[in-house]
Amino acid sequence: MNKTIPHETIKRLALYLRSLRYLARKRVEIISSRKLTEHINASPAQVRKDLACFGEFGVPGVGYQVKKLIAEIESILGLKKKQEVALVGIGKLGSALLAYPGFKRFGFRISALFDNSPEKIGKKISGLKVEDVARIEEVLRRKKIKIAIITVPAANAQEAADRLVAAGIKVILNFAPRYLNIPQGVIINTIDMAIELECLIYYLTR
Amino acid sequence: MNKTIPHETIKRLALYLRSLRYLARKRVEIISSRKLTEHINASPAQVRKDLACFGEFGVPGVGYQVKKLIAEIESILGLKKKQEVALVGIGKLGSALLAYPGFKRFGFRISALFDNSPEKIGKKISGLKVEDVARIEEVLRRKKIKIAIITVPAANAQEAADRLVAAGIKVILNFAPRYLNIPQGVIINTIDMAIELECLIYYLTR
Repeated sequence: MNKTIPHETIKRLALYLRSLRYLARKRVEIISSRKLTEHINASPAQVRKDLACFGEFGVPGVGYQVKKLIAEIESILGLKKKQEVALVGIGKLGSALLAYPGFKRFGFRISALFDNSPEKIGKKISGLKVEDVARIEEVLRRKKIKIAIITVPAANAQEAADRLVAAGIKVILNFAPRYLNIPQGVIINTIDMAIELECLIYYLTR
Repeated sequence: MNKTIPHETIKRLALYLRSLRYLARKRVEIISSRKLTEHINASPAQVRKDLACFGEFGVPGVGYQVKKLIAEIESILGLKKKQEVALVGIGKLGSALLAYPGFKRFGFRISALFDNSPEKIGKKISGLKVEDVARIEEVLRRKKIKIAIITVPAANAQEAADRLVAAGIKVILNFAPRYLNIPQGVIINTIDMAIELECLIYYLTR
């Protein structure tokens, strides 16, 4: 398999997957690349090109088998097995993510919680004990968790990231609205709500 | 001004802006394109190219004046004036966004709240009364709001979007994890937390 697939392709594969799962729930069995792109911001040619990177999935003039393509993309993205996730920062956003059904449906299980507030440490939320951020390394190494979500305030985010990296975390989804220093080999995706909204404002005045 | 600037460029401008504001807070006055890219996933050539779309901002061999560039990008993105935002769905994620300081700092003010739960309608949160989603059109037209955030469950998201479009909303930031049918002329950005995480898993196994 090609190791240098662009991040944008990977992201589109995840979007195709979302549409395909939606179609599967609606009992659609076969879908053309054109139909598939009605649900996402990509051309049919783009879909065919993206999927061609990984092999021959479709039948020309007919389309893709929905269930088979779901399985193929899940395999490409490495989603076949359940993934354990650590959550650092049990504030409002952290609690919202903990309750978010989408993670579970897609094979993610939040299985370690951390916070630095004495009022939260030791409490149980959704059956999980909130641990002190100082114990990140110990807990994550024991639980062999490689994925973490950061939902702490911007001021605490670098410290959280440093502890996660020291604990062997390889993938970070960061909601703190700031740049984080991360060593090579660790993948980070920062979702900054305000930036997502700012981008859109440009179109409002056009 | 060029009307066909790619969305990815707009997004990078917002990212440059975040870094520049961070630098301004640290009292940095001049920054090279190389230094600027240390904080984001783009090359110095990309930065120069992006900014060149809009005019001559930098001094070759010296760099950009941080404050001046902030003002220029804010102007390009249309961020000079305060933007009123409606929030539909006052659940956990909605409440988290309502409390999120980043929006205010970047000139956004959530100034209308909607929910469909009888237990929430009529309650005051952060000084704002939660209105019935059935009143979206009436309230938004009166308040002349053009931007909305959707944080309702997936099953209610299309109905919320339809009401927002009917109310004249032009920009939607959608957190419901599903595809939404939106007419041409309305801009939508869907943030699907699970997809953001799924994309990253690909790298975990490489």
